[in-house]
Amino acid sequence: MTVTIYDVAREAGVSMATVSRVVNNNPNVKPATRKKVYEAIERLGYRPNAVARGLASKKTTTVGVVIPDISNAIFAEVARGIEDIANMYHYNIILCNADKKKDKEIRVINTLLEKQVDGLLFMGGAVTEEHMQAFKTTNVPIVLCATTDENGEIPSVDINHEEAAFDAVNKLLEQGHRRIAMISGTLQDPANGYARFQGYKRALESAGIAYDDTLVRIGNYRYESGIDAMKYFIELDERPTAVFSATDEMAIGAIHMIQDSGLSVPGDISVISVDNSRMASMVRPQLTAVAQPMYDIGAVSMRLLTKLMNKENVDHSKVILPHEMIVRQSVGGV
Amino acid sequence: MTVTIYDVAREAGVSMATVSRVVNNNPNVKPATRKKVYEAIERLGYRPNAVARGLASKKTTTVGVVIPDISNAIFAEVARGIEDIANMYHYNIILCNADKKKDKEIRVINTLLEKQVDGLLFMGGAVTEEHMQAFKTTNVPIVLCATTDENGEIPSVDINHEEAAFDAVNKLLEQGHRRIAMISGTLQDPANGYARFQGYKRALESAGIAYDDTLVRIGNYRYESGIDAMKYFIELDERPTAVFSATDEMAIGAIHMIQDSGLSVPGDISVISVDNSRMASMVRPQLTAVAQPMYDIGAVSMRLLTKLMNKENVDHSKVILPHEMIVRQSVGGV
Repeated sequence: MTVTIYDVAREAGVSMATVSRVVNNNPNVKPATRKKVYEAIERLGYRPNAVARGLASKKTTTVGVVIPDISNAIFAEVARGIEDIANMYHYNIILCNADKKKDKEIRVINTLLEKQVDGLLFMGGAVTEEHMQAFKTTNVPIVLCATTDENGEIPSVDINHEEAAFDAVNKLLEQGHRRIAMISGTLQDPANGYARFQGYKRALESAGIAYDDTLVRIGNYRYESGIDAMKYFIELDERPTAVFSATDEMAIGAIHMIQDSGLSVPGDISVISVDNSRMASMVRPQLTAVAQPMYDIGAVSMRLLTKLMNKENVDHSKVILPHEMIVRQSVGGV
Repeated sequence: MTVTIYDVAREAGVSMATVSRVVNNNPNVKPATRKKVYEAIERLGYRPNAVARGLASKKTTTVGVVIPDISNAIFAEVARGIEDIANMYHYNIILCNADKKKDKEIRVINTLLEKQVDGLLFMGGAVTEEHMQAFKTTNVPIVLCATTDENGEIPSVDINHEEAAFDAVNKLLEQGHRRIAMISGTLQDPANGYARFQGYKRALESAGIAYDDTLVRIGNYRYESGIDAMKYFIELDERPTAVFSATDEMAIGAIHMIQDSGLSVPGDISVISVDNSRMASMVRPQLTAVAQPMYDIGAVSMRLLTKLMNKENVDHSKVILPHEMIVRQSVGGV
């Protein structure tokens, strides 16, 4: 026989509302009462069954979130924004890492949808045809977070990555740099990779500087790949006077490689990035960066998703948030 | 009427096994077949229902994981170990942040148990009486990860934090340091706070050095709190020649504060920590640290949990993993 909240209330000699408060960890319960309720729950083996509740109400109040990698500070900040808004609207979050790997992303999307989440936030690599197919098998709202799909079919919240990269490189140009290298993400990554690379190229073009393949290295967003790329640039016959890194962590690797080679930042080589994670201040000299409002991207995505889940009217389902230049100490003149 | 896997198979003209393979994103399906199945799923509105399946089989193949904060690199590494083993044993993970705040932890534990997880990994602050009560309301196995309960009732995987701190401070003593400060976590935190503080005290004692309250500051594990603590130490009339930080991120703040004050590491002040996260190499000079095997703690916890979930025989339910000293450049002689 199933034990109900009513049985627990009777056993503990309290109201059902009090049992509910204890179960939901509401602070307005006297410690002695809480203890009585817990004892009754334990004696009876009661467990409020969210799974059964989910089947009955067709709501799980759970949102699935696909992120690339929680060990990357920048995604962690997005996740924080998502979580804070989710808490505010009483949604729980199921967080899954997918490493920007297509197969893993699709497996994880299917798993989350199977768990009958009420909505899905997707933060990943490229949104491919296979992603679109997986998305189309469900009726729950989906919001793309810090990414967009090619045809703009799915609601999304992002910055303009091309423009952000353009502004970063322009900052170097304003300081008189002409030989500017780039540490890029993979060009298969539409936002952090391809779009930022396009911004780099456009900025050079607008300054009348010919694009030079030898000045671009592809990293994997990690610190070590910034070190490797910078090592390559330093060993060039004619080394660059400035480096634009697609992300902070690679930029910090580049700064340390420059210093480990006996050169100085920005004295010998300037470094700038797009991101502005917490890490940008955790290096000497501190990193000048174009800031993505990561927390806001998470928070606005989640807010948009709550509206879609509630079938509220949504005016803008493609949100582009502004970026801004945060000047610190890693950029100087030629 | 509910659409079943059989309906999809008939609609697509394939076997049920093929539908299952597509749904589980098994790579051994021809693209054309995959497309046919996806189209059938979309036409029929089929959704394999993990919630209903969970009710029928009483298994959700989902494990709940409570972690303090995904934006902290050290917890992210544990989570990675957990996830890799979970993948290997075909469990999904629900990850919840609880910030080491008791109320939030208990709310999250209750939410996860309500979702009928098959097991729970708890990585948090102190395991209080209230935690124990929440744990006792369920029959699913629980493993404490990088923490332990006072009475050793619940299976756990951890290092010996007191011993790790003792070894770190001993390293400084061996280099001739006598005036050794500590940046501690809160003493309410049994592992990263209290135990490491006890190790610091015991090491000083064993070297015949009197404990001095003015040489201990409590931080909140963040970079900025390492900066604040170090600022205080530098302004002391008689400043320390070495600092033991309970964690990496505060140690890096301390290193930068020393450098920002025109002093050098380790020339003027040595710095050592316990943790050895990825960050330890992402600073100049690189940080000498006693390494916690974070990935292993996560992986071993998850493996232990899979055994408990399968009711396998478990010889040791209190696992203490070894720590080791990683010597880099931040410690020198007096």
